Amino acid sequence: MNERIGALILAAGKGTRMKSDAPKVLKTLLGEPMLWYGERAMAALLGERVLTVIGHRAEAVEAAFPDLAGRFVLQAEQLGTGHALSVAMPRLVDEGYTHVLVANGDAPLVTAESLGAFIKEALDAAADVAFVSIELPDPGAYGRVVRQGGGVRIVEAKDYDTSRDGPATGEINAGVYLLRLEAIAPLLAKLRNDNKNGEYYITDLVALGAEAGLAVLAVNRGDDPAYLGINSPRELVAAEEALRRRIVDAHLDAGVVVRAAEAVRIGPRVTIAPGVELCGPLELYGDTSLAAGVTVWSHCVLARAAIGENVTLHSFCHLQDARVAAGCQVGPYARLRPGARLLEGAKIGNFVEMKKSTLGPGAKASHLTYLGDADVGAEANIGAGTITCNYDGVNKHKTVIGAHAFIGSNSALVAPVTIGDGALVGAGSVITSNVPDGALALGRGRQVTKPRK
Amino acid sequence: MNERIGALILAAGKGTRMKSDAPKVLKTLLGEPMLWYGERAMAALLGERVLTVIGHRAEAVEAAFPDLAGRFVLQAEQLGTGHALSVAMPRLVDEGYTHVLVANGDAPLVTAESLGAFIKEALDAAADVAFVSIELPDPGAYGRVVRQGGGVRIVEAKDYDTSRDGPATGEINAGVYLLRLEAIAPLLAKLRNDNKNGEYYITDLVALGAEAGLAVLAVNRGDDPAYLGINSPRELVAAEEALRRRIVDAHLDAGVVVRAAEAVRIGPRVTIAPGVELCGPLELYGDTSLAAGVTVWSHCVLARAAIGENVTLHSFCHLQDARVAAGCQVGPYARLRPGARLLEGAKIGNFVEMKKSTLGPGAKASHLTYLGDADVGAEANIGAGTITCNYDGVNKHKTVIGAHAFIGSNSALVAPVTIGDGALVGAGSVITSNVPDGALALGRGRQVTKPRK
Amino acid sequence: MNERIGALILAAGKGTRMKSDAPKVLKTLLGEPMLWYGERAMAALLGERVLTVIGHRAEAVEAAFPDLAGRFVLQAEQLGTGHALSVAMPRLVDEGYTHVLVANGDAPLVTAESLGAFIKEALDAAADVAFVSIELPDPGAYGRVVRQGGGVRIVEAKDYDTSRDGPATGEINAGVYLLRLEAIAPLLAKLRNDNKNGEYYITDLVALGAEAGLAVLAVNRGDDPAYLGINSPRELVAAEEALRRRIVDAHLDAGVVVRAAEAVRIGPRVTIAPGVELCGPLELYGDTSLAAGVTVWSHCVLARAAIGENVTLHSFCHLQDARVAAGCQVGPYARLRPGARLLEGAKIGNFVEMKKSTLGPGAKASHLTYLGDADVGAEANIGAGTITCNYDGVNKHKTVIGAHAFIGSNSALVAPVTIGDGALVGAGSVITSNVPDGALALGRGRQVTKPRK
Repeated sequence: MNERIGALILAAGKGTRMKSDAPKVLKTLLGEPMLWYGERAMAALLGERVLTVIGHRAEAVEAAFPDLAGRFVLQAEQLGTGHALSVAMPRLVDEGYTHVLVANGDAPLVTAESLGAFIKEALDAAADVAFVSIELPDPGAYGRVVRQGGGVRIVEAKDYDTSRDGPATGEINAGVYLLRLEAIAPLLAKLRNDNKNGEYYITDLVALGAEAGLAVLAVNRGDDPAYLGINSPRELVAAEEALRRRIVDAHLDAGVVVRAAEAVRIGPRVTIAPGVELCGPLELYGDTSLAAGVTVWSHCVLARAAIGENVTLHSFCHLQDARVAAGCQVGPYARLRPGARLLEGAKIGNFVEMKKSTLGPGAKASHLTYLGDADVGAEANIGAGTITCNYDGVNKHKTVIGAHAFIGSNSALVAPVTIGDGALVGAGSVITSNVPDGALALGRGRQVTKPRK
Repeated sequence: MNERIGALILAAGKGTRMKSDAPKVLKTLLGEPMLWYGERAMAALLGERVLTVIGHRAEAVEAAFPDLAGRFVLQAEQLGTGHALSVAMPRLVDEGYTHVLVANGDAPLVTAESLGAFIKEALDAAADVAFVSIELPDPGAYGRVVRQGGGVRIVEAKDYDTSRDGPATGEINAGVYLLRLEAIAPLLAKLRNDNKNGEYYITDLVALGAEAGLAVLAVNRGDDPAYLGINSPRELVAAEEALRRRIVDAHLDAGVVVRAAEAVRIGPRVTIAPGVELCGPLELYGDTSLAAGVTVWSHCVLARAAIGENVTLHSFCHLQDARVAAGCQVGPYARLRPGARLLEGAKIGNFVEMKKSTLGPGAKASHLTYLGDADVGAEANIGAGTITCNYDGVNKHKTVIGAHAFIGSNSALVAPVTIGDGALVGAGSVITSNVPDGALALGRGRQVTKPRK
Repeated sequence: MNERIGALILAAGKGTRMKSDAPKVLKTLLGEPMLWYGERAMAALLGERVLTVIGHRAEAVEAAFPDLAGRFVLQAEQLGTGHALSVAMPRLVDEGYTHVLVANGDAPLVTAESLGAFIKEALDAAADVAFVSIELPDPGAYGRVVRQGGGVRIVEAKDYDTSRDGPATGEINAGVYLLRLEAIAPLLAKLRNDNKNGEYYITDLVALGAEAGLAVLAVNRGDDPAYLGINSPRELVAAEEALRRRIVDAHLDAGVVVRAAEAVRIGPRVTIAPGVELCGPLELYGDTSLAAGVTVWSHCVLARAAIGENVTLHSFCHLQDARVAAGCQVGPYARLRPGARLLEGAKIGNFVEMKKSTLGPGAKASHLTYLGDADVGAEANIGAGTITCNYDGVNKHKTVIGAHAFIGSNSALVAPVTIGDGALVGAGSVITSNVPDGALALGRGRQVTKPRK
């Protein structure tokens, strides 16, 4: 076949019912924006031929998808889905597509498999205008499919007129189209906005196509709920829950031990080795990866964390943009902030925070410690209550701690400062000057003991 | 109509099956005592005309409801529901009621709507003795409704005699009555305790009323489970779960994004603006309020917290009796105890505890800090590991930190002490004397470095 | 009857589908190894007459069950269940059993009640070879029960031949046998491994027994899912969830208030007094015990913790091998590590870690503290930010704090060190020498205040 298919995601709307200033398509499901899902499904089929129409707070949507730079079409005024298609038409033609797959950006449950099957059916039937229909027990506000006299038409729910359209059925327009560009190009100018919302509807192409003698096809997908768009917070969380189960199920099938699975939230980009043990409640987001032999106990929250082989994360850990090498022990109650990096066999204990810091192989910071902008050498021991004083009120400074150094408990290391290899800092010290390799440093008051008054 | 309706909640019982010393009606559901729900439903209909009969550990019940002071009737000996009504009778008459609505204090799922409809039906029928009946597949120990010869009677389950009462049905007495006081007053003296428990039953008024030719009405509410009283821990947690779903559903309907909704517990007095984002597991209790734009991540527990617009609470926060103004960032792992107050744009980070303290606009305490009895000025920065030493073993003392002050990390501020505006405290200092505005204070040992032995 | 019944648990397999190096029977359910459940059920019936066949990583299995030392049979090569029985046969004979109950180690849901009923039925029927069968809608890879010509036979799924065995039914061999040793001894040598796996199957004893004219009995247990073995992570977590519900239900029945019960995980060895209040998410493992009047709030994880009467554990606590006496207050965010011991009425607050330490009656450590290898006397007060410096890089040392001592906030106590009864340590001190009873010790720099440059 000579078809060259492009795709268009409609993502210009405001989503008033979401009760939020944020664009609806940026609302997240398991940590990824709603639009990400639609884009991913289309890209799985069509690679980089996907364009996205944006409008309401367009700059926010663009900023959220840096990888899609250059693949946006701006619909400055949001005058309806038909108008969005008209705005995108020159670009679609310019990119040389014969057909365009059109879908709404608010249906994250639709899979590439389902879209691919729809495209195949439409192409096999040589349809000029094809769309997906589904059947609902209570079709509510959705556009209704009217099959009359051998033809197919779509009527917006609020414009439905039983005297004209016959008794309503539950078959609705799911908002996904495959359109042959050459065929529908002349029809776009005929779209009218004389309806209750004063909008140009892409759905009207169905009737216009029939009038013009085009091949119109409605591909009925039964009661597949994936095609229902998300219009309210309730629908958002219901879709998120459906995705959650789908993803957890796939990890169970792949041999991940997901205990208390109903309380486990795993994002779509997370990778987990077979045999890994997880226990809910637990959240894994972004491109988090868990290597073989990892155990993550309950009450952990990870986003964009890379966890190496045989690491154990104890309960109540919070990791963001952090890397943990093989064999490390983390937590409970460890917080690894962006740039935290544990090398092989390192150990972070309870009530310890790390930010832009590296803990060398076998090094330990076991209790009540803050490591910010610090570079800790191999096998170093950071005592309980150690604080790196990395901020002077204006700038952040670096602390370097050498291999096998021993930092006594409750010490303050005033950065910039370097503690040498094998150096020892006495407990309770305030260290303001560098400590050479192998040296002992103390910086504390002398004890005075006297009778209590 | 000239009716003047009062109400009586029966809350004198011990609730032996709860296996607890606490009075049953003080057991909580989503943070509110069981009795609170019944009182609220009645008060929604009848305002302050609600009286509560207390007996077992009466002083504990009174203490738990300071707002209801003066609205309690003491049943010193708990001789049954009929006895409770007799004890309350003089007070009901004294307050000038024509009718009294009687309900048990252990049925928190009963709504004002349901009670209101019952009252209306009873008054419309001009009933002297009206009660709610429901139908159970397995009526167990509940009093059975016997409809014989056009009349209605109630027989306690343990006194049921099929030879006298006929084959048992599933229709039971739900324990909610509307009684015309003038009609039933003469009957109270006729109540007898010649039953297995040796108690005076209010249920016997039904039979006595029928004998006396009064208008008796059983209002059948079908299988509504709300009328079932709570008698065991299992019933308590089942009712709590039913309430939980009811409340979460209402917030979803109102446009709140409740992620992982099955793990979200929200009390009945919590208010949440539409569009707010929550993620379970999460608990919100008491009169907590969340303003527009708020996000509360997973694993947070809030009780009586007021959260301003656009605040983000990160995971693992614990707030009690705290106020957080607009634009603040809190957590993860922040503990705000009673009297903690964050002003606009302030920031509290991980492993930080605040108690009876105020953090000024834009001020920050980001790590491992204890602020007790402290007043921190605008834009001040409290370094990691800072401790306000507010307790001398006898009294608590106040720490005042000025605007734009900078407290170096790991400092101890020995209260009472004042750090001036723009003052700087060096890292690791122990501060025992006031620091003037703009001054620099150090209180730490001098560093000595020497070869390690 | 003269029967003397022994038992054999088959636990030698690797469990390849578990995707883990660990032996399958060591995978845990609610904190106990899978094998523990089977062993417990058999031991409830047969006491110490249970033997366990181990093979794959036998030493790991032995090490996990020190109480079962001497009760293991090593199957060095894993040549099938029939081979396992052959290996164990001399030992069974040696111990004088007439019969052996054989079960797989991967079916933790099977109860002693069910096994006991099976044994009784088999003995009552004087069966030589008895086994449990169950019916599955989709029997998959399980051995099929073939009842032909009045006899009973078992065919492995992969060897099933409809031309020989007739149309397949859903009745399968559940892998639980009662065998009369004298009867089956001659048959063991006849087992053959000419099947697809090249293994000796214990199931073939059924056919061999029939051929030899023995009394063969299949005890059909309908669709009881408890007999299904665990072969994959999905089956593991499903079985764990079934156990979880069974255990939580039992505690609800016993009068424990289990709030948010779906998120509560309680191990099989945990004991809880009636009336105790729990709130999920929550985990209780090992031989944890909760006495009367205890409340454990949400987000707590306890393993092998003994909690005394009227203790409250606030949210986010993590206890392992710890003892908390009556009337203590713990948390939120308290971590009690092995050897932590709170005596009556002690208090541990937020971000406090204890390890191998005792807190005396009424003593307090309320904030941001590390107590390691410390012995704290009655009514002592440990200020916020106190650190016991118990580790010198080589050895751990002890800190002793006397009764009624007061440790000022942010102090470092450098062990070994003793603070006397009633002694006072000034805030921010580093204490390196003993402090006598009633003395005051300070160890901090003198404050210097000067204009900020």
